[in-house]
Amino acid sequence: MSDTPFTSATEFRSLLQDLPQPDQTALDGAAERNGQLTKPPGALGRLEDLAIWYAGWRGDARPALTAPQVVVFAGNHGVCAQGVSAFPAEVTVQMVANFKAGGAAINQLAHAFGARMDVHALDLDTPTADFTAGPAMSEAELVEALTVGWDAVDPSADLLVTGEMGIGNTTAAAAITLALFGGAAEDWVGRGTGVDDAGLANKARVLAAAMEANPSAKGDGLEALRCVGGREVAAMAGAMARARVLRIPVILDGFICTAAAAALDNVASGALDHAVAGHVSAEAAHGALLDKLGKSPLLSLGMRLGEGSGAALAIGVLKGALACHSGMSTFAEAGVSDG
Amino acid sequence: MSDTPFTSATEFRSLLQDLPQPDQTALDGAAERNGQLTKPPGALGRLEDLAIWYAGWRGDARPALTAPQVVVFAGNHGVCAQGVSAFPAEVTVQMVANFKAGGAAINQLAHAFGARMDVHALDLDTPTADFTAGPAMSEAELVEALTVGWDAVDPSADLLVTGEMGIGNTTAAAAITLALFGGAAEDWVGRGTGVDDAGLANKARVLAAAMEANPSAKGDGLEALRCVGGREVAAMAGAMARARVLRIPVILDGFICTAAAAALDNVASGALDHAVAGHVSAEAAHGALLDKLGKSPLLSLGMRLGEGSGAALAIGVLKGALACHSGMSTFAEAGVSDG
Repeated sequence: MSDTPFTSATEFRSLLQDLPQPDQTALDGAAERNGQLTKPPGALGRLEDLAIWYAGWRGDARPALTAPQVVVFAGNHGVCAQGVSAFPAEVTVQMVANFKAGGAAINQLAHAFGARMDVHALDLDTPTADFTAGPAMSEAELVEALTVGWDAVDPSADLLVTGEMGIGNTTAAAAITLALFGGAAEDWVGRGTGVDDAGLANKARVLAAAMEANPSAKGDGLEALRCVGGREVAAMAGAMARARVLRIPVILDGFICTAAAAALDNVASGALDHAVAGHVSAEAAHGALLDKLGKSPLLSLGMRLGEGSGAALAIGVLKGALACHSGMSTFAEAGVSDG
Repeated sequence: MSDTPFTSATEFRSLLQDLPQPDQTALDGAAERNGQLTKPPGALGRLEDLAIWYAGWRGDARPALTAPQVVVFAGNHGVCAQGVSAFPAEVTVQMVANFKAGGAAINQLAHAFGARMDVHALDLDTPTADFTAGPAMSEAELVEALTVGWDAVDPSADLLVTGEMGIGNTTAAAAITLALFGGAAEDWVGRGTGVDDAGLANKARVLAAAMEANPSAKGDGLEALRCVGGREVAAMAGAMARARVLRIPVILDGFICTAAAAALDNVASGALDHAVAGHVSAEAAHGALLDKLGKSPLLSLGMRLGEGSGAALAIGVLKGALACHSGMSTFAEAGVSDG
């Protein structure tokens, strides 16, 4: 049995209303230190803000990043019956095997940046229900997925990246964003791992049907996760919430991860203050979604793989920021004139 | 004595006319491997192009990056007499001491990404001549600076980043770009490490005087380096040329490094094919200069420190790209359906 502090969607929702905040003393100390380092003010650009942000969440004005964790969640989607993906659903289980064998992109990136990596496959032989006809999950299934995510976070980690694998899940992510932010279905669909123009039109049709079949998803983050999301998407949300409770900073990955994050933000404004956007993906709607969340991406390299790959790459940027912040000499230490 | 293959600007110029090209077999092999990796085609975006580019220069379809080198060159500038910098010229020598003691940003970034770092201070007690009145350097001084750069490259390195430190050198870089690309002086000046609006206007005045006093710099890369550049700028150019001869890929840093690179490109079109742009800096003209060179930056994080810092941070991106390219399983190896 899990010892998670929620056993229902309502309890999870309540938990999000009372989240920890960054440590003001560490924030102030980090900002003061930043101003004393041997560089012109602001010359490290976003690296400076990143380091101070990280310091606040870790409660340490001169922090180190030593234990990043990447967790990849996998799920299967009933909506694949609607022909929304260029790949067959079997690829989800095949890729889980690839993750476990160490052969996927995320394995290489996690290793390159010194991150521990865990993989959680969520009931791959029982896809969620096709959400064009009704909710993808029951409340019990949603809570189970949130719990898998919650429990997946290592409390001793000092950074979290959540990644995903799930054939069809860009459609689920688009449905979540459409439910939360409105607009036209066409605004939120993209090519995923490689659908053509007809595939795009089909995804828009699927989204319209999903909204019709799931009125409770509209404007409600948890209902959106349950009705038009998926197990791995909900697990990412659960993991990001747990990270917040533990004051573990999060780097957001691409469109699907950010849709999961948006569900948390919808439930409790500010619930993503512990998260930065690792990259903006080539999936068409990701940039617009980041704008909705007020997050500016660290990287823009045309990636669209998922798995947590863009966020894992951004660990390097954060490592660089913290190496500078915590390792550089001050003007006084180095005997350098400060202008 | 150095055993460099040039003893005059003319010989250096000739050398640039006959540069090695990437290995086509390695390029083809890398592209073929990329197409077999367990990901949708193109899903790693620019990481895929980066890995293939690197493979070509290293002559290895499945390369590793194990020995990056960062070299920082420092010089002092007579043009500082014109009040072009917010910092006093003494800071150059103070920062060299900081580099040697390991306290600067570039030390932390080089260490974070596993790079060897070397520092070369070029005659700091003898600034170049004030180029508003005539050439900054004699031909002998130019050749000496190019030679320092040439000799600074470790032939066993598998990646080169050149960084710089030199109070006043954003003005030298702006003068080089104005000499090579024309336009208005105002197009190429920026705030450097922190000048105000009056300082910007002064820099534009200085550039106009530099062009007037150095007609031979116009449209000639080596004359621009000599007349309106500086020792550390010329040394960067020498190092990047050596890297090309050794087929060591280069990551370009900010405005000053890119101005040095532009001088090579001016002398021999294609001389920068072994270089990628690590970042676009906050120095106003850097983005325009990269456009002129047809280089799209890997990072855009508002950095404007120099020292090689933006390029060193981009080593992380290249490491990630190569980790994926050379470490991932193929569809056949992993038993994953390829769509």
